[in-house]
Amino acid sequence: MSQQTAITPTRAQDFPEWYQQVIKGADMAENSEVRGCMVIKPWGYAIWELIQKDLDQRFKDTGHTNAYFPLLIPISYLEKEAEHAEGFATECAVVTHHRLEAQKDEATGKTHMIPTGELTEPFVIRPTSETVIGAAFARWTSSYRDLPLKINQWCNVMRWEMRPRIFLRTAEFLWQEGHTAHETREEAIEETLTMHKVYEEFQRDVLAIPTIPGEKTEAERFPGAEQTYTVEAMVQDRKAIQAGTSHFLGQNFSKSQNICFAGRDNTQQFAWTSSWGVSTRMIGALIMMHSDDDGLVCPPCVAPQQVVIIPVTPKEDTRQAVLDHCEELARTLRAKTFHGQPLRVLVDRRDLGGGAKKWEWIKKGVPVRLEIGPRDLEKGSVCFQRRDQAPNEKTFLPETELADTITDILQNIQDTLLNKAVAFRDAHIRPASTLRELEENFSGEGDADWLQVPWDGSPEEEEELAKRLRISIRCIPLGELGHGDPAPCILTGRLTERRVLWARSY
Amino acid sequence: MSQQTAITPTRAQDFPEWYQQVIKGADMAENSEVRGCMVIKPWGYAIWELIQKDLDQRFKDTGHTNAYFPLLIPISYLEKEAEHAEGFATECAVVTHHRLEAQKDEATGKTHMIPTGELTEPFVIRPTSETVIGAAFARWTSSYRDLPLKINQWCNVMRWEMRPRIFLRTAEFLWQEGHTAHETREEAIEETLTMHKVYEEFQRDVLAIPTIPGEKTEAERFPGAEQTYTVEAMVQDRKAIQAGTSHFLGQNFSKSQNICFAGRDNTQQFAWTSSWGVSTRMIGALIMMHSDDDGLVCPPCVAPQQVVIIPVTPKEDTRQAVLDHCEELARTLRAKTFHGQPLRVLVDRRDLGGGAKKWEWIKKGVPVRLEIGPRDLEKGSVCFQRRDQAPNEKTFLPETELADTITDILQNIQDTLLNKAVAFRDAHIRPASTLRELEENFSGEGDADWLQVPWDGSPEEEEELAKRLRISIRCIPLGELGHGDPAPCILTGRLTERRVLWARSY
Repeated sequence: MSQQTAITPTRAQDFPEWYQQVIKGADMAENSEVRGCMVIKPWGYAIWELIQKDLDQRFKDTGHTNAYFPLLIPISYLEKEAEHAEGFATECAVVTHHRLEAQKDEATGKTHMIPTGELTEPFVIRPTSETVIGAAFARWTSSYRDLPLKINQWCNVMRWEMRPRIFLRTAEFLWQEGHTAHETREEAIEETLTMHKVYEEFQRDVLAIPTIPGEKTEAERFPGAEQTYTVEAMVQDRKAIQAGTSHFLGQNFSKSQNICFAGRDNTQQFAWTSSWGVSTRMIGALIMMHSDDDGLVCPPCVAPQQVVIIPVTPKEDTRQAVLDHCEELARTLRAKTFHGQPLRVLVDRRDLGGGAKKWEWIKKGVPVRLEIGPRDLEKGSVCFQRRDQAPNEKTFLPETELADTITDILQNIQDTLLNKAVAFRDAHIRPASTLRELEENFSGEGDADWLQVPWDGSPEEEEELAKRLRISIRCIPLGELGHGDPAPCILTGRLTERRVLWARSY
Repeated sequence: MSQQTAITPTRAQDFPEWYQQVIKGADMAENSEVRGCMVIKPWGYAIWELIQKDLDQRFKDTGHTNAYFPLLIPISYLEKEAEHAEGFATECAVVTHHRLEAQKDEATGKTHMIPTGELTEPFVIRPTSETVIGAAFARWTSSYRDLPLKINQWCNVMRWEMRPRIFLRTAEFLWQEGHTAHETREEAIEETLTMHKVYEEFQRDVLAIPTIPGEKTEAERFPGAEQTYTVEAMVQDRKAIQAGTSHFLGQNFSKSQNICFAGRDNTQQFAWTSSWGVSTRMIGALIMMHSDDDGLVCPPCVAPQQVVIIPVTPKEDTRQAVLDHCEELARTLRAKTFHGQPLRVLVDRRDLGGGAKKWEWIKKGVPVRLEIGPRDLEKGSVCFQRRDQAPNEKTFLPETELADTITDILQNIQDTLLNKAVAFRDAHIRPASTLRELEENFSGEGDADWLQVPWDGSPEEEEELAKRLRISIRCIPLGELGHGDPAPCILTGRLTERRVLWARSY
């Protein structure tokens, strides 16, 4: 097992299939019989709960409150939108009836359920809630005193995806969507940038994902947005994953939804709005970012269990003493805190071989494994293994030392994962100055670096090049990665200071 | 204002309308433009978050883990169920198409969205997830070693309600649904009763709602269940609210869903399953249980803010000192804990009159209000008001005393609300021994007591009586309320030891 790998195929052999097998090996999620919809199993859902808990506090700390809006959107709401937004998403689940009637087939004896009760106005299941939340904001806003509105919703949304991929792209997924309305353009832009920063920091400090923060080009913007900000993650096959977006919507939505207010000067004005969201897609990014050929590698901050203790009980006469000791150590460790939360520690008491247990926790990505047997009891030591080290690398530590340093160890694992990801990312972003370089870089089927290039093409030119090379502009990075001395655009030759990142993406 | 009431009409004038106005006054929720669906506004949603947090811990403490299953249910799943369960719920949202196409009306210039992409098999939006979770359980279970499965899901569900009432009965609502599968009948029954107990204790200790725990009669059971346990709350108009149910499903669902396993004796066996749930309906019960003619009364355990501090700042020169002092007191109070959580304390710094602020917090049901002005600063005192006392009743307390006793005060408010509710409930449950008494009790339009009666009628007789008097058997209470010396059934005259509770209900 140590010579081989716990996951077949390896990343090098078949990255997409490796991804599926990591998810299966960690028992995180599975496809359901409902086309494109996944079942998120306890280990995967526990990661989502940890993500939610941390992000939710960040939203509250920046002045947002949670609320809940209807799942169904009247089609008339979308008709208003369609008049304003080109490229409107229309692959969505449509509710047309409100009743099922059982009909028994006399020949076969089987019961069939027939939709009846046709609705006069159909609904769609929300693909996003701008329209329905906008309608509420319009009801709630009459004076500048009612602003800002800073609302977040945790919910499920649905888009009829034709090529689903578990966590990364599913018909139904879980997400949060923030929606805000402001008195001034400046406030709304500030909000958009604040939440963009919250996403970047959360992904860096909690998921150990070092994203590139930047702005989307016009061609890649959310329909109806004036500006879309994104955080882009580079995973191990060097593809990009858009891990969160934050949109400044200007007055586009407030005008179609009539979100208006009496201003300080008593004139009627339209509000300035923003929206921002991240989803269970982040779990897909997390897996592709850190995992290895032995399975999931979970950063300690979002590991459902941070430490698993495996009792080694070869003989019946010492069994109870070993179990008791493991439980006592677990209690000691649970009394410690990591990032403000009590340590999550499990004693694996199951009646299973030690090897089977060990490999199960490796595949589940638990940061620290401890083994304790009768001899360790005598010596007061534990056998200590880290998920970010080779499966058979082990250290024997005095138990007191372990207890004193466990939070440092977890932080070290967290930092190691981040640093490794940063190094990988930085090694695979290169400047390029000609179209030829771009074409060569993205010509083969193998993994391809991200290219940072001077760009001044039109949206149409961008879309044409994107289609031809099956790549896209991930963003115009914030900071120095997005700027440079005037240089010729690789396509038009026009001088530009702007630099964009071209990459393949999920 | 103190002579009048903050809410019009009063409970005595029009209880159902009072209920709507309490919700409006507290800004908890509102109807949306989507038929039967509500928007849960921040104050209402914050109560739901507190409910979730507490209950979720209780579920985890009893060995459950959370997971997430698809929103959509293939109609074929329901067809299997329909063959086994009479009375199957069929008022539900049916998804028949997966695309919208924009069509521009040349005459009017308006865009219409037309459903296209008809599905070969329609889906329904989950009204409950027994079928979809059962299908997963069938995949996950092959040996007795895979059992028990103890899963909970927090999600939205949808039933096409014809007479919606905000929180109590809405087309879409939020809930949790627990689903478990066990090796033996006894284990599944134990699970059902454990969760029934969890609901009773949670509602008593957190919502201050003293429910009557009991079993449903056959006529009132969940379709497909062998036993349904319920917790029934009596609200102020003496109607009953079913505030949570727990079902022992026997092998009925495992047989239709093929949840089977190789047992210890190597024979193939069907699992024994249970399901249990509570929903945002509990918030409706909470409102009707405790609130008064001045608005919401929120038990401290689920109050989004437990203490609101209102700075009284008549003069500009002392304004900053008062505000600073209020913030300092808030920090002191937030360092205290109540039921394991830091106190939730808000300083209301808005530029609004003190009277307006005070009445807003009264209507929102905040347990403790504090007013601090320049003179209080000098004296080191605070003006202290409790929501469970008259709006103008106030006490001046030394600030140090307040800080030392605030958690006791909150617990006292919590206890007072519970005790009041217990006394009300107990004053309005009466034994009755004849059909005549039942008919008289429920003949008028006014509030009617619950009657505890000897009952041995058939399900058909029960349904007929229920329909005639527009009442129902809420439960056969556990404990002595559900038993007595042999006495003649009020309908059949047959001797029975069983006692049931008849009542009107929401």
